[in-house]
Amino acid sequence: MNKHSNQHMTTDEFRKQGKKVIDWIADYYDQIEQYPVLSQVKPGEIRSNLPQSAPIKGRDYGDILSDMDKMMPGITHWQSPNFHGFFPCATSGPAILGDLISTGLSINGMNWATSPSCTEVETHVLDWLVDMMDLPNKFKSTSTGGGVLQDTASSSSLVALIAAREKASNGQTNKNGGNQQLTAYTSSQAHSSIEKAVKIAGIGNDSLRLIKVDDSFAMNPKHLRESIETDISNGLTPAFVCATVGTTSSTALDPIEDIGKICQEFNIWLHVDAALAGPAALCPEFRFIHDGLEYADSYTFNPHKWMLTSFDCSVFYVANRKVLIDSLSILPEYLKNKDTDSEMVINYRDWGIPLGRRFRALKLWHVINYYGVEGLQKYIRYHISNTQELKSWIEENDRFEIVAPVPINLICFRHKNGDEFNENLLNTLNDSGKLYLTHTKLNNQFVLRFSVGQSNTTLDHLKKSWNYILDTVYEMEKD
Amino acid sequence: MNKHSNQHMTTDEFRKQGKKVIDWIADYYDQIEQYPVLSQVKPGEIRSNLPQSAPIKGRDYGDILSDMDKMMPGITHWQSPNFHGFFPCATSGPAILGDLISTGLSINGMNWATSPSCTEVETHVLDWLVDMMDLPNKFKSTSTGGGVLQDTASSSSLVALIAAREKASNGQTNKNGGNQQLTAYTSSQAHSSIEKAVKIAGIGNDSLRLIKVDDSFAMNPKHLRESIETDISNGLTPAFVCATVGTTSSTALDPIEDIGKICQEFNIWLHVDAALAGPAALCPEFRFIHDGLEYADSYTFNPHKWMLTSFDCSVFYVANRKVLIDSLSILPEYLKNKDTDSEMVINYRDWGIPLGRRFRALKLWHVINYYGVEGLQKYIRYHISNTQELKSWIEENDRFEIVAPVPINLICFRHKNGDEFNENLLNTLNDSGKLYLTHTKLNNQFVLRFSVGQSNTTLDHLKKSWNYILDTVYEMEKD
Repeated sequence: MNKHSNQHMTTDEFRKQGKKVIDWIADYYDQIEQYPVLSQVKPGEIRSNLPQSAPIKGRDYGDILSDMDKMMPGITHWQSPNFHGFFPCATSGPAILGDLISTGLSINGMNWATSPSCTEVETHVLDWLVDMMDLPNKFKSTSTGGGVLQDTASSSSLVALIAAREKASNGQTNKNGGNQQLTAYTSSQAHSSIEKAVKIAGIGNDSLRLIKVDDSFAMNPKHLRESIETDISNGLTPAFVCATVGTTSSTALDPIEDIGKICQEFNIWLHVDAALAGPAALCPEFRFIHDGLEYADSYTFNPHKWMLTSFDCSVFYVANRKVLIDSLSILPEYLKNKDTDSEMVINYRDWGIPLGRRFRALKLWHVINYYGVEGLQKYIRYHISNTQELKSWIEENDRFEIVAPVPINLICFRHKNGDEFNENLLNTLNDSGKLYLTHTKLNNQFVLRFSVGQSNTTLDHLKKSWNYILDTVYEMEKD
Repeated sequence: MNKHSNQHMTTDEFRKQGKKVIDWIADYYDQIEQYPVLSQVKPGEIRSNLPQSAPIKGRDYGDILSDMDKMMPGITHWQSPNFHGFFPCATSGPAILGDLISTGLSINGMNWATSPSCTEVETHVLDWLVDMMDLPNKFKSTSTGGGVLQDTASSSSLVALIAAREKASNGQTNKNGGNQQLTAYTSSQAHSSIEKAVKIAGIGNDSLRLIKVDDSFAMNPKHLRESIETDISNGLTPAFVCATVGTTSSTALDPIEDIGKICQEFNIWLHVDAALAGPAALCPEFRFIHDGLEYADSYTFNPHKWMLTSFDCSVFYVANRKVLIDSLSILPEYLKNKDTDSEMVINYRDWGIPLGRRFRALKLWHVINYYGVEGLQKYIRYHISNTQELKSWIEENDRFEIVAPVPINLICFRHKNGDEFNENLLNTLNDSGKLYLTHTKLNNQFVLRFSVGQSNTTLDHLKKSWNYILDTVYEMEKD
């Protein structure tokens, strides 16, 4: 991208092609509702249209941009307003542009010195968020803790577990693999990433206790206590509890306060996974989801889910940054510089798994500044209100039942005709391309999940989707 | 970004602002040599210019773009042609645009179904690279193995270690933490991420053997064998050897063939970390760096370092994908779909730590197609040739000594006046802003590292930097 070389893209060419790409993206959003939400291709279909081997000669950029035509049939449109699968993965114009600037600068913020702005903007904006969501002050960098951006909540939870493991083993696991048998606890409804983390960290999933849930699918603190006491009496060392605020299956809210008191009593690290639900706390009226968060040693939520920030962007807070850094820090000679030993700076390479780091905070900076606190609140309130409206439509129809509480933006429901009917219904809906839903199992029943929160989903979209579901059901009932 | 809501950025506004951002990036590259390469700000200086709290009302996008003026003094310019610190982190116009499209689409490729193109383009382009670099065929998805993109080599090496751990413990560590004491091996010159991985995986760094190196700073296979035999005789289970192709300190090349034969004899997982050096193998004349790679169970290199692809992009190959998937797979109900149980598709969520995944392959697709195989070869050859030219200038000056072999694109050198002089020289050069070098220690001596490979670095840039180093030395010698 300069004038010296005859093969790099010149800046003039970059201006020209970059503007075409911007238009391509804008066109995509203008037309997004014309695509089937779930890709309808067969396995191998996309690959079969790609050249067998890499080109020997370079190709014109315009031709490369045209390659997207071959790839678009294999895209599932997460940004469609009719995407209601899994959880939202909502982005926005300012997020895309913030990330573009980050990619354009292409710096690596592994150390403070390798781009002070990368570190300081990240610290700053994460301190902002503590205030914006009224999180415990101890999570601020100006207190004992601090925030850091990870790629995903899977990584955030793994990092929390590593820190908890080292605290419980007095640093022995890092040193010699540990000689105590550690145990971890989460509810039977927790995200799969907790089990994955327990395996990665070498604790082993035989040592993970999946605590029973109550009728609302939230962790039962009584069972947690029993499980901890049993383990202690068997000579094991409870090290880590993960409470979930907004479980993946049904957005159940574990009672952090009750869980936190137990963790405090037994000196166990409490990690709170609010990957999806966290941003609800931008609005004072939804802050009840975090009641008891002052007991937490670490906390994570994902702005890339329900806060308009492009994937990947997971916020991770720790109450005592020293424990985290001691667990992950390694300082070889080639990474030392005038500042590395200083207490004055944060070196985020010691706060996560990768050494290298993108300037991820820039997209978060863009989103928070573009929407402002009020804009983000409005977005959250709009989706929660629309979800409750959709819920009322489902409740009015006696063919259906709602099978879990709906505290925020996910509805778990099923047709009363049984598992097979619901599974057929799901596949028929998804094959139509008109909307995309995913499923789960609750009380061993097949349940449809309707997740609300994509940036451009309006009440009108929900109405159309609900009508389409009803039409499909009427057709199916005829057969 | 639609017409329904009064607060999202409209597509019209996105077109307008996006084009401004494209121009902003092009302007940045046009002016990049005017900035001091290493940021000259003091700790806290950037933060002190940012507002204390988040804005309540949203701000105009133009004002947010202007915020970059406050952040630019805190940027260390990795893309400057005068950046010679660490390793290259070279990007290019097509990489930036490929990543922009990925961010624009904002899909999540955790499962095949959640965007088949994300998975299939990734598999396809990584199969291409096996041919482009003449890597062992077993790394292809059409054979027993396959490639996957990770964020960084730190993650690639961790994933390799987890798979090795499970193979050595017969899946027992994932299950119950394992009851065998596993050991890992790498050279004393290996990257810090290996020690970090050993700690994260719960093996403990007491169980990591840092094998001695020879005069070229490459692993001594004789010492490796001795260490393995000692551990076995002590009842330990050797599980993992990491050989490095292009060490971080000096780009030393571990002898993979000799190491691989030992691994084969003792049935130990061999991982090869070629994070920086890998792309040299695009050129037949440099493929000697991979001699013996057919013994490797896994291999990683980073296109975001020396292959013109924006950070983050680390390629990871495994020879037996089943072992990897068995180590990392967890399949809860909410992730199941018609295709998850099928042998027909790859679900990359089981190939790494995060569940969610960006469409990272798109930038790699753009780079390979824009440059073509010949263009990438030309880029590699140009930088290796320039490095050798710079080396000859250093050799001609008897004030300096070159302290390690220069097989590819890094020169380790020092002034003969001792450690303090060299450390002062480094700081003086970096404080000038005219170029950026980092250091290491070899044979316990302070050594300057001159890394070559940023996209726009020409022979002329190297000449000017070398002359500036000489001028600085003359000034320092006067004092």
